[in-house]
Amino acid sequence: MRRARNRDRRKNRSLAGAISDDAIGPTGTPGGSYQPLTKSGTERIYAAALDVLAKVGIKNATLTVRNLALDRGCSLDAEGRLLFPKSLVEDTIAGAARDFVLHGQSAAHDIEVRDGHVHFATGGAAVKILDSHLGSYRPSTLADLYDLARLCDTLPNIQWFARPVVATDIDDWRELDLNTVYAIAKGTTKHLGSSIGLDHHVGEIVELLDLLVGREGAFHKRPFLSVHATTIVSPLSFAEDSSNVAMAAARSNMPILSQTGPQAGATAPAALAGTLVQSVAESIGALVAINLVKPGHPVIASGWPFVSDLRTGAFSGGGGEQALLSAGQAQMMRFLRLPTGVPASMADSKVPDNQAGYEKALSVVLAAMSGPDFVYESVGMLASLLGCSMEAMVIDDEMIASIRRTMRGIEVTDEKLSVDEIAETARGVGHFLGNRQTLELMESEYVYPNLADRSSPDDWVESGSQDLWQRASERVGEVLKTHFPSHISDNCDDKVRLRFPIRLPKERTRPPSLNRLHAGGN
Amino acid sequence: MRRARNRDRRKNRSLAGAISDDAIGPTGTPGGSYQPLTKSGTERIYAAALDVLAKVGIKNATLTVRNLALDRGCSLDAEGRLLFPKSLVEDTIAGAARDFVLHGQSAAHDIEVRDGHVHFATGGAAVKILDSHLGSYRPSTLADLYDLARLCDTLPNIQWFARPVVATDIDDWRELDLNTVYAIAKGTTKHLGSSIGLDHHVGEIVELLDLLVGREGAFHKRPFLSVHATTIVSPLSFAEDSSNVAMAAARSNMPILSQTGPQAGATAPAALAGTLVQSVAESIGALVAINLVKPGHPVIASGWPFVSDLRTGAFSGGGGEQALLSAGQAQMMRFLRLPTGVPASMADSKVPDNQAGYEKALSVVLAAMSGPDFVYESVGMLASLLGCSMEAMVIDDEMIASIRRTMRGIEVTDEKLSVDEIAETARGVGHFLGNRQTLELMESEYVYPNLADRSSPDDWVESGSQDLWQRASERVGEVLKTHFPSHISDNCDDKVRLRFPIRLPKERTRPPSLNRLHAGGN
Repeated sequence: MRRARNRDRRKNRSLAGAISDDAIGPTGTPGGSYQPLTKSGTERIYAAALDVLAKVGIKNATLTVRNLALDRGCSLDAEGRLLFPKSLVEDTIAGAARDFVLHGQSAAHDIEVRDGHVHFATGGAAVKILDSHLGSYRPSTLADLYDLARLCDTLPNIQWFARPVVATDIDDWRELDLNTVYAIAKGTTKHLGSSIGLDHHVGEIVELLDLLVGREGAFHKRPFLSVHATTIVSPLSFAEDSSNVAMAAARSNMPILSQTGPQAGATAPAALAGTLVQSVAESIGALVAINLVKPGHPVIASGWPFVSDLRTGAFSGGGGEQALLSAGQAQMMRFLRLPTGVPASMADSKVPDNQAGYEKALSVVLAAMSGPDFVYESVGMLASLLGCSMEAMVIDDEMIASIRRTMRGIEVTDEKLSVDEIAETARGVGHFLGNRQTLELMESEYVYPNLADRSSPDDWVESGSQDLWQRASERVGEVLKTHFPSHISDNCDDKVRLRFPIRLPKERTRPPSLNRLHAGGN
Repeated sequence: MRRARNRDRRKNRSLAGAISDDAIGPTGTPGGSYQPLTKSGTERIYAAALDVLAKVGIKNATLTVRNLALDRGCSLDAEGRLLFPKSLVEDTIAGAARDFVLHGQSAAHDIEVRDGHVHFATGGAAVKILDSHLGSYRPSTLADLYDLARLCDTLPNIQWFARPVVATDIDDWRELDLNTVYAIAKGTTKHLGSSIGLDHHVGEIVELLDLLVGREGAFHKRPFLSVHATTIVSPLSFAEDSSNVAMAAARSNMPILSQTGPQAGATAPAALAGTLVQSVAESIGALVAINLVKPGHPVIASGWPFVSDLRTGAFSGGGGEQALLSAGQAQMMRFLRLPTGVPASMADSKVPDNQAGYEKALSVVLAAMSGPDFVYESVGMLASLLGCSMEAMVIDDEMIASIRRTMRGIEVTDEKLSVDEIAETARGVGHFLGNRQTLELMESEYVYPNLADRSSPDDWVESGSQDLWQRASERVGEVLKTHFPSHISDNCDDKVRLRFPIRLPKERTRPPSLNRLHAGGN
């Protein structure tokens, strides 16, 4: 397995160019050096969230959840809202799954969920994709989804591929779910994520994934897809379909990314602290419901507190408020020692321009530094989550390499304090270029970007005056032309196609050269 | 004075659009919630820096400094290096100026230097300026410097204007110094900064500034320009000219931005911790030298630890390593309670693109959060400090508004926990749009960008599909056409022009309409 991982690393490195894994640090970078809330702040927010769960509660619980909850000491108020006593909440938190593995199809991509180790994931449900050549948007399709998965498969800093766009070319819910899962499982061997429309699709999806692996029960043993389930809609109301999906997933051993999306000023208070109170209450409420059905089931208890631009009421993901909310939510869930993920990198800009760059960096670095297990939406999203861009995806991945370097921090050891080197050099040659320590640390202390340009103005003009978007566009073109993951055998693929209405043409999933060969052979 | 400040704020707001000062917080935002070093890390770096000062010392001390130092317990080693005993260093740190005011020409722009209150400044000595229309660089001129000062005068988030470009159209050192100071003092009423070539220019510059104000001794009373002096060049060597300039400045009551620029892997160790050791040693060494000449003189004891891209040896300001070094240096100087500033926002990108955006945001937010008194180079710099861009300047200013919002943090008060609002809304209308708290907090909890676009993809296409660079370019055009600060009377201006070889044409400093009027009147 170690060998497989190394081989995989080498492959990623060659695609990503000169970025050194050594300098970035191992997958799952420690976070937590930025804390937006004081200790007393976290305690007050948690106490207020407990208060909300006990006195306001959550409405529209499904019959299953309600009955289990009443057995465990919950009560219903006059309006039928389910009220959660503090003791049940605390018991649930104490007994929740903490250390578990989220599998990849390839074992090299297994993710160990451990307190304070930050991983980066995609996410989103954009309905548009940026056409970089035209500089405009068009509806996203199933083929886009497959291409995005292939692209993400090459990105060294992303550990979880959740479907970033909706295949808007499929209307039927069942076919949408099946084809979404097929396209992403075919495009990348990383851990997968997708929402699922209805609970009875869960079984079919597991069947599809087993067929892809070629072994019945394979998914149950190494579940490599998490369902994204919004079991609670804000403010404080269970959603029936999603609740049922989550319960079906729990029964199928499918990990759950339990997400809630309270939007400050719209479906949550305008005060950021108030949005965190509601967000924590909702995250915990959803966790309790799932644990009632299946205690200790692997759940990423995510709150995704969002921001409204109060001039228009529209969602806005690019401001400092979003960075604070995501970091604050991460700190709260870390305080409770619950596996969690928060959203970041949700630029409001429509293109990968200067605005996108600073909006993304600001929220990603603060969210990541605050120590969630996952940063979602971390690459590719634009237009306040309405749009996705392949160019943004590769750009953001490289940005995350820099951010992971900052998360590794400054190592203070006797060696690295370098007092002897300073003495020797100051009294000697007067520069550190090429000395022993410099050569030794060249790969481990520094990250070298590949797409980001560090040349002089003159050299830059000479090589064509490209901006980052243009360079990223070339990179995307190369990857899509050449990278066709082949972890699924033709035999398994055929069986899936026989059993399910797969829309992605087979020849679309093979290198063009291979298709010419096939055509020639026929 | 309060009134003047408010008037000035209003003016800035109208130029900057809808950005609310309330949400950003007052000038001088508290920092310190991000700490890249552990407590033991700071102690070890400080101990190592003391060790370096005591055992390696600094070479090439000027005669003045050397004699004063030997009187205070320093010694010379066999190579003539000046060695600093721990006791002198600690006495200097204990007696260093801490709380002081850096004046603006307008009192509204006075900066109170206070532990942990972060201000943003320009900086740099670029020799090229980006021509946005051609997308290429040309040598920077005196007229550019004046325009940059005017532009900065309108930027609400910048409190100190240090000359970002060199007037490369002036060869003579004396004329360069005089014209640089004239151009920036004419362009903005904010606190000013510039390097000065030779010590005997200092007196003339003070004379020029007194003439501009129209009162002898005015500068001495309210020194509104700090000299940027690199009294130590790395590794650990005094620079004669700059040392003499600093001493002349101290005698003229001119505050000193004492900066050192050790470059990791080139003029400092490749290990980041080692670069911090040397940087702290050099920052303190420079501080000791100035305090020997004038104890308690206002000094911003800045270390600007830089990064080399070790593939080429060239300076690189855009990576995660730079963000860590700047934040680490800030934390070290804050640990010593010394007024300090660090560089950030030094993008390697040549244009205001996605790369520039993320490189800048990453270093500015981490540097600012770590709590220096000043973040230098914070707006406008590109091309690894070789280039400056007016468009980048206004873009970066708005980015800093978002960053200042994050620095304000999440206020946790009973009111803001919003438990009553959550209860009322969850049981009632189901949304928070337009409720009392939302309307109340709309201005104080949220920052609304003006240049950054938050519209939908369709609206964005309809309004011309502009990226941020294009919108910034329009803003720059408007400001330069209309904003001609008139704080210097014609009478004073004439006296300066009579006394000194001022190169900036008088008509260049007036609105075109006024020039037509003058021309008509003649």
